[in-house]
Amino acid sequence: MHMLDLIDKKKKGKRLSKEEIYYIVQGYTEGAIPDYQISALLMAIYFQGMDAEETRMLTMAMVESGDQIDLSAIEGVKVDKHSTGGVGDKVSLVVIPLVASLGIPVAKMSGRGLGHTGGTIDKLESIEGFDISLSMEKFIENVNTNKMAIVGQTGDLTPADKKLYALRDVTATVDSIPLIASSIMSKKIASGSDAIVLDVKVGNGAFMKTLDDARALAKAMVSIGRGLGRDTVAVLTNMNEPLGKEVGNANEVREAIKTLKGEGMQDLVNVSVTIAGHMAVLGGAFDSIEVAEKAIRENMKNGKALEMLKTLVKIQGGNVSQIENPDLLPTAKISVPVIAKKKGFVHEIKAEEIGTSAMLLGAGRETKEDVIDYAAGITLHKKVGDEVTEGDVLCTLLTNRENYQDAYDKAQEAYDIADERPEHIPFILDVITEA
Amino acid sequence: MHMLDLIDKKKKGKRLSKEEIYYIVQGYTEGAIPDYQISALLMAIYFQGMDAEETRMLTMAMVESGDQIDLSAIEGVKVDKHSTGGVGDKVSLVVIPLVASLGIPVAKMSGRGLGHTGGTIDKLESIEGFDISLSMEKFIENVNTNKMAIVGQTGDLTPADKKLYALRDVTATVDSIPLIASSIMSKKIASGSDAIVLDVKVGNGAFMKTLDDARALAKAMVSIGRGLGRDTVAVLTNMNEPLGKEVGNANEVREAIKTLKGEGMQDLVNVSVTIAGHMAVLGGAFDSIEVAEKAIRENMKNGKALEMLKTLVKIQGGNVSQIENPDLLPTAKISVPVIAKKKGFVHEIKAEEIGTSAMLLGAGRETKEDVIDYAAGITLHKKVGDEVTEGDVLCTLLTNRENYQDAYDKAQEAYDIADERPEHIPFILDVITEA
Repeated sequence: MHMLDLIDKKKKGKRLSKEEIYYIVQGYTEGAIPDYQISALLMAIYFQGMDAEETRMLTMAMVESGDQIDLSAIEGVKVDKHSTGGVGDKVSLVVIPLVASLGIPVAKMSGRGLGHTGGTIDKLESIEGFDISLSMEKFIENVNTNKMAIVGQTGDLTPADKKLYALRDVTATVDSIPLIASSIMSKKIASGSDAIVLDVKVGNGAFMKTLDDARALAKAMVSIGRGLGRDTVAVLTNMNEPLGKEVGNANEVREAIKTLKGEGMQDLVNVSVTIAGHMAVLGGAFDSIEVAEKAIRENMKNGKALEMLKTLVKIQGGNVSQIENPDLLPTAKISVPVIAKKKGFVHEIKAEEIGTSAMLLGAGRETKEDVIDYAAGITLHKKVGDEVTEGDVLCTLLTNRENYQDAYDKAQEAYDIADERPEHIPFILDVITEA
Repeated sequence: MHMLDLIDKKKKGKRLSKEEIYYIVQGYTEGAIPDYQISALLMAIYFQGMDAEETRMLTMAMVESGDQIDLSAIEGVKVDKHSTGGVGDKVSLVVIPLVASLGIPVAKMSGRGLGHTGGTIDKLESIEGFDISLSMEKFIENVNTNKMAIVGQTGDLTPADKKLYALRDVTATVDSIPLIASSIMSKKIASGSDAIVLDVKVGNGAFMKTLDDARALAKAMVSIGRGLGRDTVAVLTNMNEPLGKEVGNANEVREAIKTLKGEGMQDLVNVSVTIAGHMAVLGGAFDSIEVAEKAIRENMKNGKALEMLKTLVKIQGGNVSQIENPDLLPTAKISVPVIAKKKGFVHEIKAEEIGTSAMLLGAGRETKEDVIDYAAGITLHKKVGDEVTEGDVLCTLLTNRENYQDAYDKAQEAYDIADERPEHIPFILDVITEA
């Protein structure tokens, strides 16, 4: 087998066989195939695509390139959840205790964030003492005893995907549906879950800008999951503004607490309940999504959901009093109101601009070495659809940095205000259960 | 300027500006831009193409990446000639003395061959003592005095093209019209010629298999040449069989001698006269191709053309008696007739198979280190259109190697013999003078 022939084959729009895909992925991971041949192949895939079987084989080849987590010691169906990434996305913080409160095991493996704000484990680390470096034994024991645990990525999962992603990132070959789908799914499958619920964000603040693109990605991922024996559902959710009202770390934990009590913003509640509902159905606890969602909302009202968050924090060494009294979570010294310069209705809050603003305030990492300021972030007072008068406070910057002018400008620019009332976009745009 | 953005731009089908193309070519030549980004860009160009202006800019950026030969010390219009490559292609050996015999200066710079047989200078080196390593001063002096000279490539011409070509060769990005056209034209322009006649081969033995593809390549090259102030004409010639009857080195020199006397095979004579005719017109010696061709055929009959070859050999230190008596050129110890296994008409002689066969006999180089056996090669007795009876000699292998079985099989397989008489394909398929 020659790499040159395989590039040429894909370039001409032919399909690659299982053997050929494994040859490529193994050869690249081992360093036998050079970057320059892989980048040419990736560009050919960008133009010619890959069919469902090729995409599935690519996923499995990446899964088998490294360690695979064995969760078989956990009783029950292990359901994982993945978000394609948005701003203010604290859904995992809400969903983990929610699903666990229904008696379904949640063994969550999560990465750190590089970008606007921290990832799920960064957010949890804004709670004093919260420890995400559990051993695999302790992780499994916690899930069996308390129905949930969260751990930072351990082992050498999907090294092929890491290497391929790094190359795609510098060769303009990121935006290819089969490449995105196989990258995401390989990590989920290597993490050992039995079923997967995908939160595919759509809109200006998401990687997928249009519903059509998001649907194509969702279908590709559902096809991979089902083809590899993992029940998979994708929920398409709106990302034409940040989710909820908080963007940052400690403030997102505060918002998650409120939401678990049933007092959250409508968009965040709806997305969280829908994701948790599908997880509960895939986990086998309910036959229908309607019944599942009802039970979930019930556990928000009766306090069971919040109780589960406290349990999670407790068993992972965190300070539970910060959950009971969220004012004890890190708070910023400086708070700056961002003022509306014109009247009208909010049409869009450019999530990327808000994210960048939050990063400038200290909430995210530009490089791996950067240290997150858990107290930093942004609180949105006006959301899409709200009416605004000149001089109103659109959002508040939370920071410990004196020099916040750039962040202020970014946040102000993020708000798109126009005269007429905007059309309402649903929080949940579609649910994909079949490829 | 960021390479990532430029890849993305081309990927999306947008045009690159002059500044962007120079940034890419300079950065790559200097090693500032890595192979893996360039190969992704090349694949994007394969799919999205380049317009005439982009292709011209790419050509100039490659020309300016290295040395440029200054031929201004030679009086008159310097016309160069280039072939896209075929088997049995000894046209340059015929054309150089032909054009010089009309009083037009021919300053030929030529490369060595890597493949089936040697290149033009390898073929000339089968003449005892022939020296192709002239200094630039001597080269120019010879042209001014004797109207012609041939030299191996000197200086560091188009290093960007060399580096890009090597990368294209291993990333399946060779077959892109703008990339091929700019590669060929950059070398011709850096070599300092004022006008260029291109021999674009079409058929099974050529890089361009179809007339449409060949025409597209020809137009792209003519467009580059004219756009950069070089009168350029492309002649599309048939390569559904090797050109003439000899494939090798010394035997091709023998055939060139015969052809210069007007006793050559029709296909070789026609192609040579047409190419020489266009060179003569571009060189300003004639107003029309018809008159030029008449003068050329006249010089073949009256001995002036052959006399010019003797002069060329003499001034470059070669043994002229080998031209006067071609039997003195290297001859092989072993000659093996290849026998027809069936009767019918020759429809096609797969040039690539004949070429490979010749290489196995010792006529070419597989690697740069291989030494050419000037005596080795193949003489074709049957050409396309000829009637064949079982047992007829199709061609003769000429070699000094005892083990010629593979070469024999290849040569036999090269002949495609069928019952019905084949359609005649003209030697000259088209002449392109405008983009």
